[in-house]
Amino acid sequence: MVVATPSIDRKAFMLVLSSPSGAGKTALARHLLSTDHSFVVSVSVTTRPPRRGEVDGKDYYFVDDGSFNKMVDQNELLEHAQVFSYRYGTRAEPVRASLAQGKDVLFDIDWQGAQQLRNGKSISDHLVTVFILPPSMTELSRRLKARELDSDDEVRRRMLGAAQEISHWEAYDYILINDDFDRCFASLYSIVKAERARRQRQPGLSWFVSQLTKDSSSD
Amino acid sequence: MVVATPSIDRKAFMLVLSSPSGAGKTALARHLLSTDHSFVVSVSVTTRPPRRGEVDGKDYYFVDDGSFNKMVDQNELLEHAQVFSYRYGTRAEPVRASLAQGKDVLFDIDWQGAQQLRNGKSISDHLVTVFILPPSMTELSRRLKARELDSDDEVRRRMLGAAQEISHWEAYDYILINDDFDRCFASLYSIVKAERARRQRQPGLSWFVSQLTKDSSSD
Repeated sequence: MVVATPSIDRKAFMLVLSSPSGAGKTALARHLLSTDHSFVVSVSVTTRPPRRGEVDGKDYYFVDDGSFNKMVDQNELLEHAQVFSYRYGTRAEPVRASLAQGKDVLFDIDWQGAQQLRNGKSISDHLVTVFILPPSMTELSRRLKARELDSDDEVRRRMLGAAQEISHWEAYDYILINDDFDRCFASLYSIVKAERARRQRQPGLSWFVSQLTKDSSSD
Repeated sequence: MVVATPSIDRKAFMLVLSSPSGAGKTALARHLLSTDHSFVVSVSVTTRPPRRGEVDGKDYYFVDDGSFNKMVDQNELLEHAQVFSYRYGTRAEPVRASLAQGKDVLFDIDWQGAQQLRNGKSISDHLVTVFILPPSMTELSRRLKARELDSDDEVRRRMLGAAQEISHWEAYDYILINDDFDRCFASLYSIVKAERARRQRQPGLSWFVSQLTKDSSSD
Protein backbone atom coordinates (compact mmCIF):
# COMPACT_ATOMS: atom_id res chain seq x y z
CA MET A 1 0.00 0.00 0.00
CA VAL A 2 1.29 3.42 -0.92
CA VAL A 3 0.47 6.50 1.10
CA ALA A 4 1.50 9.96 -0.11
CA THR A 5 5.02 10.66 1.17
CA PRO A 6 4.89 13.41 3.74
CA SER A 7 7.20 16.17 2.62
CA ILE A 8 9.65 16.90 5.42
CA ASP A 9 11.71 20.09 5.42
CA ARG A 10 15.34 19.13 5.47
CA LYS A 11 18.66 20.86 6.03
CA ALA A 12 20.97 20.69 3.02
CA PHE A 13 24.51 19.46 3.49
CA MET A 14 27.94 19.80 1.92
CA LEU A 15 29.40 16.59 0.53
CA VAL A 16 33.17 16.68 0.19
CA LEU A 17 34.83 14.10 -2.08
CA SER A 18 38.60 13.85 -1.91
CA SER A 19 41.00 11.35 -3.44
CA PRO A 20 44.31 11.27 -5.26
CA SER A 21 43.95 12.15 -8.97
CA GLY A 22 42.88 9.12 -10.94
CA ALA A 23 40.98 7.40 -8.12
CA GLY A 24 37.70 8.20 -9.85
CA LYS A 25 36.41 11.06 -7.74
CA THR A 26 35.47 13.27 -10.68
CA ALA A 27 33.57 10.48 -12.47
CA LEU A 28 31.73 9.68 -9.21
CA ALA A 29 30.89 13.36 -8.73
CA ARG A 30 29.55 13.69 -12.29
CA HIS A 31 27.43 10.58 -11.95
CA LEU A 32 26.02 11.81 -8.63
CA LEU A 33 25.06 15.15 -10.18
CA SER A 34 23.31 13.46 -13.09
CA THR A 35 21.54 10.95 -10.79
CA ASP A 36 20.34 13.28 -8.06
CA HIS A 37 18.99 16.70 -8.92
CA SER A 38 19.01 17.89 -5.31
CA PHE A 39 22.75 18.37 -5.72
CA VAL A 40 24.60 21.31 -7.15
CA VAL A 41 28.33 21.30 -7.59
CA SER A 42 30.63 23.83 -6.06
CA VAL A 43 32.70 25.17 -8.93
CA SER A 44 36.22 25.86 -7.71
CA VAL A 45 38.31 28.85 -8.67
CA THR A 46 41.77 28.00 -9.97
CA THR A 47 44.86 29.61 -11.40
CA ARG A 48 45.72 26.49 -13.41
CA PRO A 49 45.14 26.73 -17.17
CA PRO A 50 42.12 24.86 -18.60
CA ARG A 51 42.70 21.28 -19.84
CA ARG A 52 41.27 20.41 -23.23
CA GLY A 53 37.48 20.33 -23.06
CA GLU A 54 37.21 22.19 -19.77
CA VAL A 55 34.68 25.03 -19.69
CA ASP A 56 35.11 28.21 -17.65
CA GLY A 57 32.35 28.54 -15.04
CA LYS A 58 31.42 24.86 -15.36
CA ASP A 59 34.57 22.85 -14.60
CA TYR A 60 36.36 25.71 -12.86
CA TYR A 61 36.43 29.44 -12.75
CA PHE A 62 39.80 30.06 -14.39
CA VAL A 63 41.40 33.19 -12.97
CA ASP A 64 44.85 34.76 -12.83
CA ASP A 65 46.95 35.11 -9.69
CA GLY A 66 45.91 38.73 -9.21
CA SER A 67 42.19 37.91 -9.15
CA PHE A 68 42.81 34.94 -6.86
CA ASN A 69 44.72 37.12 -4.39
CA LYS A 70 41.93 39.67 -4.42
CA MET A 71 39.35 36.98 -3.48
CA VAL A 72 41.59 35.83 -0.63
CA ASP A 73 42.08 39.41 0.61
CA GLN A 74 38.36 40.16 0.48
CA ASN A 75 37.57 36.96 2.40
CA GLU A 76 35.43 35.64 -0.44
CA LEU A 77 36.78 32.08 -0.26
CA LEU A 78 35.59 29.35 2.10
CA GLU A 79 38.90 27.55 1.57
CA HIS A 80 41.91 27.78 -0.70
CA ALA A 81 45.08 25.78 -1.20
CA GLN A 82 48.08 25.38 -3.45
CA VAL A 83 48.32 22.03 -5.28
CA PHE A 84 51.44 21.44 -7.38
CA SER A 85 52.08 24.85 -9.02
CA TYR A 86 48.53 26.13 -8.94
CA ARG A 87 46.02 27.59 -6.52
CA TYR A 88 42.49 26.36 -5.94
CA GLY A 89 39.67 27.81 -3.87
CA THR A 90 35.92 27.76 -3.13
CA ARG A 91 33.81 30.92 -3.32
CA ALA A 92 31.61 31.21 -0.23
CA GLU A 93 28.64 33.07 -1.67
CA PRO A 94 27.28 30.46 -4.13
CA VAL A 95 27.63 27.72 -1.48
CA ARG A 96 25.65 29.68 1.10
CA ALA A 97 22.99 30.52 -1.47
CA SER A 98 22.59 26.86 -2.51
CA LEU A 99 22.34 25.60 1.08
CA ALA A 100 19.75 28.29 1.83
CA GLN A 101 17.69 26.99 -1.12
CA GLY A 102 17.86 23.45 0.33
CA LYS A 103 20.29 22.22 -2.31
CA ASP A 104 23.06 19.86 -1.23
CA VAL A 105 26.45 21.05 -2.43
CA LEU A 106 29.08 18.69 -3.81
CA PHE A 107 32.79 19.55 -3.44
CA ASP A 108 35.54 17.89 -5.43
CA ILE A 109 38.49 19.21 -3.40
CA ASP A 110 41.73 17.97 -1.87
CA TRP A 111 42.65 17.31 1.78
CA GLN A 112 43.77 20.89 2.36
CA GLY A 113 40.44 22.26 1.19
CA ALA A 114 38.54 19.68 3.24
CA GLN A 115 40.58 20.60 6.31
CA GLN A 116 39.78 24.28 5.92
CA LEU A 117 36.06 23.54 5.52
CA ARG A 118 36.16 21.42 8.70
CA ASN A 119 37.71 24.34 10.55
CA GLY A 120 34.99 26.73 9.38
CA LYS A 121 32.72 26.89 12.44
CA SER A 122 29.64 28.25 10.69
CA ILE A 123 29.62 25.41 8.16
CA SER A 124 31.27 22.39 9.81
CA ASP A 125 28.00 20.76 10.91
CA HIS A 126 26.77 20.88 7.31
CA LEU A 127 29.80 18.86 6.28
CA VAL A 128 29.99 15.19 5.22
CA THR A 129 33.42 14.09 4.03
CA VAL A 130 34.23 11.06 1.90
CA PHE A 131 37.68 9.87 0.88
CA ILE A 132 38.04 7.65 -2.21
CA LEU A 133 40.98 5.24 -2.17
CA PRO A 134 42.31 3.43 -5.24
CA PRO A 135 42.47 -0.39 -4.92
CA SER A 136 46.25 -0.20 -5.48
CA MET A 137 48.92 2.26 -6.61
CA THR A 138 49.57 0.14 -9.70
CA GLU A 139 45.92 0.50 -10.65
CA LEU A 140 46.05 4.25 -9.96
CA SER A 141 49.06 4.65 -12.21
CA ARG A 142 47.34 2.59 -14.91
CA ARG A 143 44.24 4.81 -14.74
CA LEU A 144 46.26 8.03 -14.89
CA LYS A 145 48.07 6.79 -18.01
CA ALA A 146 44.85 5.49 -19.60
CA ARG A 147 43.06 8.82 -19.41
CA GLU A 148 45.82 10.41 -21.53
CA LEU A 149 45.30 13.82 -19.97
CA ASP A 150 48.80 14.22 -18.62
CA SER A 151 52.37 13.93 -19.86
CA ASP A 152 54.57 11.13 -18.43
CA ASP A 153 56.22 13.72 -16.17
CA GLU A 154 52.81 14.88 -14.93
CA VAL A 155 51.77 11.25 -14.24
CA ARG A 156 54.94 10.71 -12.19
CA ARG A 157 54.25 13.94 -10.27
CA ARG A 158 50.65 12.89 -9.64
CA MET A 159 51.79 9.51 -8.32
CA LEU A 160 54.08 11.26 -5.85
CA GLY A 161 51.19 13.58 -4.91
CA ALA A 162 48.87 10.59 -4.50
CA ALA A 163 50.76 9.16 -1.52
CA GLN A 164 50.67 12.60 0.11
CA GLU A 165 46.90 12.97 -0.49
CA ILE A 166 46.21 9.43 0.75
CA SER A 167 48.12 10.11 3.97
CA HIS A 168 45.18 12.32 5.06
CA TRP A 169 42.47 9.63 4.77
CA GLU A 170 42.00 9.45 8.55
CA ALA A 171 40.43 12.92 8.67
CA TYR A 172 37.38 11.81 6.66
CA ASP A 173 33.98 10.56 7.88
CA TYR A 174 33.61 7.81 5.28
CA ILE A 175 36.17 5.84 3.29
CA LEU A 176 35.39 4.06 0.03
CA ILE A 177 37.71 1.93 -2.09
CA ASN A 178 37.02 2.49 -5.76
CA ASP A 179 37.72 -1.00 -7.06
CA ASP A 180 34.59 -1.02 -9.21
CA PHE A 181 32.78 2.15 -10.32
CA ASP A 182 29.19 0.90 -9.94
CA ARG A 183 29.80 -0.62 -6.53
CA CYS A 184 31.65 2.47 -5.33
CA PHE A 185 28.92 4.77 -6.63
CA ALA A 186 26.24 2.67 -4.89
CA SER A 187 28.13 3.04 -1.61
CA LEU A 188 28.52 6.77 -2.14
CA TYR A 189 24.82 7.15 -2.87
CA SER A 190 23.97 5.16 0.27
CA ILE A 191 25.95 7.70 2.26
CA VAL A 192 23.94 10.50 0.65
CA LYS A 193 20.61 8.81 1.42
CA ALA A 194 21.66 7.95 4.97
CA GLU A 195 22.83 11.50 5.66
CA ARG A 196 19.45 12.80 4.49
CA ALA A 197 17.75 10.42 6.94
CA ARG A 198 19.70 11.79 9.91
CA ARG A 199 17.43 13.40 12.45
CA GLN A 200 19.44 16.62 12.52
CA ARG A 201 19.07 17.03 8.77
CA GLN A 202 15.26 16.83 8.93
CA PRO A 203 14.18 19.91 10.90
CA GLY A 204 10.67 19.50 9.43
CA LEU A 205 10.15 16.37 11.54
CA SER A 206 9.25 18.41 14.63
CA TRP A 207 6.24 19.78 12.82
CA PHE A 208 5.39 16.40 11.31
CA VAL A 209 5.48 14.64 14.69
CA SER A 210 3.41 17.37 16.34
CA GLN A 211 0.78 16.83 13.63
CA LEU A 212 0.91 13.05 14.18
CA THR A 213 0.24 13.55 17.88
CA LYS A 214 -2.60 15.98 17.21
CA ASP A 215 -4.09 13.38 14.83
CA SER A 216 -3.86 10.84 17.68
CA SER A 217 -5.56 12.96 20.35
CA SER A 218 -8.48 13.81 18.04
CA ASP A 219 -9.14 10.09 17.37
CA MET B 1 36.97 -2.65 -15.13
CA VAL B 2 36.71 -4.87 -12.08
CA VAL B 3 39.55 -5.34 -9.66
CA ALA B 4 39.29 -7.84 -6.79
CA THR B 5 37.67 -6.08 -3.84
CA PRO B 6 40.21 -5.67 -1.07
CA SER B 7 38.81 -7.27 2.04
CA ILE B 8 38.89 -4.73 4.86
CA ASP B 9 38.46 -5.81 8.46
CA ARG B 10 35.49 -4.01 9.90
CA LYS B 11 33.96 -3.41 13.30
CA ALA B 12 30.45 -4.80 13.65
CA PHE B 13 27.70 -2.54 14.92
CA MET B 14 24.36 -2.74 16.72
CA LEU B 15 21.37 -1.51 14.74
CA VAL B 16 18.43 -0.53 16.90
CA LEU B 17 15.02 -0.23 15.27
CA SER B 18 12.26 1.32 17.32
CA SER B 19 8.74 2.39 16.39
CA PRO B 20 5.21 2.20 17.74
CA SER B 21 3.61 -1.22 17.09
CA GLY B 22 2.21 -1.40 13.61
CA ALA B 23 4.65 1.06 12.01
CA GLY B 24 6.33 -1.83 10.19
CA LYS B 25 9.50 -2.27 12.23
CA THR B 26 9.21 -6.06 12.50
CA ALA B 27 8.62 -6.51 8.75
CA LEU B 28 11.59 -4.23 8.02
CA ALA B 29 13.76 -6.19 10.46
CA ARG B 30 12.77 -9.53 8.89
CA HIS B 31 13.47 -8.27 5.40
CA LEU B 32 16.86 -6.92 6.47
CA LEU B 33 17.82 -10.29 7.97
CA SER B 34 16.83 -12.16 4.83
CA THR B 35 18.61 -9.64 2.56
CA ASP B 36 21.90 -9.26 4.44
CA HIS B 37 23.55 -12.28 5.98
CA SER B 38 26.05 -10.21 7.95
CA PHE B 39 23.22 -9.50 10.38
CA VAL B 40 22.03 -11.58 13.26
CA VAL B 41 19.02 -10.64 15.31
CA SER B 42 19.08 -10.11 19.02
CA VAL B 43 16.33 -12.31 20.41
CA SER B 44 14.69 -10.57 23.36
CA VAL B 45 13.62 -12.23 26.57
CA THR B 46 10.02 -11.56 27.56
CA THR B 47 7.46 -12.48 30.19
CA ARG B 48 4.59 -11.97 27.74
CA PRO B 49 2.89 -15.14 26.50
CA PRO B 50 3.63 -16.22 22.90
CA ARG B 51 1.27 -14.99 20.16
CA ARG B 52 0.04 -17.56 17.67
CA GLY B 53 2.92 -18.70 15.44
CA GLU B 54 5.67 -17.32 17.67
CA VAL B 55 8.54 -19.71 18.36
CA ASP B 56 10.52 -19.78 21.62
CA GLY B 57 14.19 -18.94 20.99
CA LYS B 58 13.42 -17.45 17.57
CA ASP B 59 10.86 -14.69 18.10
CA TYR B 60 11.51 -14.35 21.84
CA TYR B 61 12.82 -16.31 24.74
CA PHE B 62 9.58 -16.75 26.68
CA VAL B 63 10.31 -16.85 30.41
CA ASP B 64 8.38 -16.44 33.66
CA ASP B 65 8.80 -13.52 36.07
CA GLY B 66 11.09 -15.54 38.34
CA SER B 67 13.58 -16.32 35.57
CA PHE B 68 13.45 -12.72 34.35
CA ASN B 69 14.21 -11.39 37.84
CA LYS B 70 17.13 -13.78 38.14
CA MET B 71 18.65 -12.48 34.86
CA VAL B 72 18.29 -8.91 36.12
CA ASP B 73 19.87 -9.80 39.48
CA GLN B 74 22.80 -11.59 37.84
CA ASN B 75 23.41 -8.62 35.52
CA GLU B 76 22.88 -10.77 32.42
CA LEU B 77 20.75 -8.20 30.57
CA LEU B 78 22.08 -5.29 28.50
CA GLU B 79 18.73 -3.58 28.91
CA HIS B 80 15.27 -4.39 30.19
CA ALA B 81 11.97 -2.56 30.37
CA GLN B 82 8.31 -2.99 31.17
CA VAL B 83 5.91 -2.46 28.25
CA PHE B 84 2.20 -2.64 29.02
CA SER B 85 1.91 -5.54 31.48
CA TYR B 86 5.02 -7.43 30.39
CA ARG B 87 8.78 -7.26 30.75
CA TYR B 88 11.30 -7.36 27.90
CA GLY B 89 15.07 -7.56 27.97
CA THR B 90 18.24 -8.27 25.96
CA ARG B 91 20.77 -10.87 27.07
CA ALA B 92 24.31 -9.47 26.90
CA GLU B 93 26.28 -12.61 26.15
CA PRO B 94 24.96 -13.50 22.65
CA VAL B 95 25.29 -9.84 21.56
CA ARG B 96 28.94 -9.64 22.65
CA ALA B 97 29.68 -12.99 20.97
CA SER B 98 28.11 -11.87 17.66
CA LEU B 99 29.96 -8.53 17.61
CA ALA B 100 33.23 -10.35 18.36
CA GLN B 101 32.57 -12.56 15.29
CA GLY B 102 32.10 -9.45 13.14
CA LYS B 103 28.34 -9.92 12.85
CA ASP B 104 26.13 -6.84 13.00
CA VAL B 105 23.34 -7.25 15.53
CA LEU B 106 19.79 -6.07 14.89
CA PHE B 107 17.57 -5.00 17.81
CA ASP B 108 13.82 -4.63 17.57
CA ILE B 109 13.29 -2.82 20.89
CA ASP B 110 11.37 0.13 22.30
CA TRP B 111 12.59 3.58 23.40
CA GLN B 112 13.34 2.40 26.94
CA GLY B 113 15.59 -0.39 25.68
CA ALA B 114 17.30 1.96 23.22
CA GLN B 115 17.89 4.46 26.00
CA GLN B 116 19.52 1.84 28.20
CA LEU B 117 21.77 0.68 25.36
CA ARG B 118 22.82 4.29 24.73
CA ASN B 119 23.75 4.61 28.40
CA GLY B 120 25.90 1.45 28.29
CA LYS B 121 29.41 2.91 27.98
CA SER B 122 31.11 -0.24 26.68
CA ILE B 123 28.68 -0.58 23.78
CA SER B 124 27.41 2.91 22.95
CA ASP B 125 29.90 3.54 20.12
CA HIS B 126 28.74 0.33 18.44
CA LEU B 127 25.22 1.72 18.38
CA VAL B 128 23.21 3.02 15.40
CA THR B 129 19.62 3.91 16.21
CA VAL B 130 16.73 4.27 13.77
CA PHE B 131 13.19 5.34 14.58
CA ILE B 132 10.38 4.37 12.22
CA LEU B 133 7.41 6.75 12.12
CA PRO B 134 4.03 5.88 10.62
CA PRO B 135 2.79 8.30 7.93
CA SER B 136 -0.27 9.08 10.10
CA MET B 137 -2.04 7.77 13.20
CA THR B 138 -5.05 6.85 11.09
CA GLU B 139 -2.80 4.66 8.94
CA LEU B 140 -1.21 3.15 12.06
CA SER B 141 -4.60 2.24 13.47
CA ARG B 142 -5.64 0.77 10.11
CA ARG B 143 -2.49 -1.40 10.03
CA LEU B 144 -2.97 -2.62 13.61
CA LYS B 145 -6.54 -3.65 12.81
CA ALA B 146 -5.53 -5.25 9.47
CA ARG B 147 -2.98 -7.57 11.02
CA GLU B 148 -5.70 -9.10 13.22
CA LEU B 149 -3.25 -10.00 15.96
CA ASP B 150 -4.90 -7.99 18.70
CA SER B 151 -8.35 -7.56 20.19
CA ASP B 152 -10.08 -4.17 19.78
CA ASP B 153 -9.09 -3.34 23.35
CA GLU B 154 -5.48 -4.22 22.60
CA VAL B 155 -5.54 -2.03 19.46
CA ARG B 156 -6.86 0.91 21.52
CA ARG B 157 -4.14 0.32 24.10
CA ARG B 158 -1.47 0.14 21.39
CA MET B 159 -2.69 3.43 19.88
CA LEU B 160 -2.33 5.09 23.28
CA GLY B 161 1.13 3.54 23.63
CA ALA B 162 2.07 4.72 20.12
CA ALA B 163 1.93 8.41 21.00
CA GLN B 164 4.12 7.69 24.03
CA GLU B 165 6.67 5.74 21.94
CA ILE B 166 6.71 8.41 19.20
CA SER B 167 7.42 11.12 21.79
CA HIS B 168 10.97 9.71 22.05
CA TRP B 169 11.86 10.07 18.35
CA GLU B 170 14.36 12.86 19.05
CA ALA B 171 16.79 10.48 20.78
CA TYR B 172 17.47 8.52 17.57
CA ASP B 173 20.25 8.98 15.00
CA TYR B 174 18.08 8.41 11.94
CA ILE B 175 14.34 8.89 11.36
CA LEU B 176 12.40 7.16 8.60
CA ILE B 177 8.73 7.54 7.73
CA ASN B 178 7.27 4.21 6.67
CA ASP B 179 4.82 5.41 4.06
CA ASP B 180 5.86 2.71 1.59
CA PHE B 181 7.60 -0.50 2.61
CA ASP B 182 10.06 -0.76 -0.32
CA ARG B 183 11.08 2.88 -0.11
CA CYS B 184 11.48 2.70 3.66
CA PHE B 185 13.51 -0.48 3.42
CA ALA B 186 15.79 1.06 0.76
CA SER B 187 16.45 3.99 3.11
CA LEU B 188 17.12 1.64 6.00
CA TYR B 189 19.54 -0.38 3.92
CA SER B 190 21.32 2.81 2.83
CA ILE B 191 21.89 3.57 6.50
CA VAL B 192 23.40 0.11 6.98
CA LYS B 193 25.72 0.50 3.97
CA ALA B 194 26.74 4.02 4.97
CA GLU B 195 27.49 2.96 8.55
CA ARG B 196 29.73 0.20 7.22
CA ALA B 197 31.61 2.79 5.13
CA ARG B 198 32.37 4.95 8.20
CA ARG B 199 36.07 5.20 8.81
CA GLN B 200 35.75 4.13 12.45
CA ARG B 201 33.95 0.96 11.44
CA GLN B 202 36.78 -0.13 9.12
CA PRO B 203 39.79 -0.73 11.39
CA GLY B 204 41.38 -2.81 8.60
CA LEU B 205 41.92 0.37 6.55
CA SER B 206 45.08 1.27 8.46
CA TRP B 207 46.72 -1.91 7.21
CA PHE B 208 45.30 -1.45 3.70
CA VAL B 209 46.60 2.12 3.42
CA SER B 210 50.03 1.13 4.75
CA GLN B 211 50.20 -1.52 2.01
CA LEU B 212 49.13 1.04 -0.61
CA THR B 213 51.96 3.34 0.45
CA LYS B 214 54.49 0.50 0.43
CA ASP B 215 53.28 -0.35 -3.07
CA SER B 216 53.92 3.28 -4.05
CA SER B 217 57.46 3.50 -2.64
CA SER B 218 58.52 0.27 -4.38
CA ASP B 219 57.36 1.63 -7.78
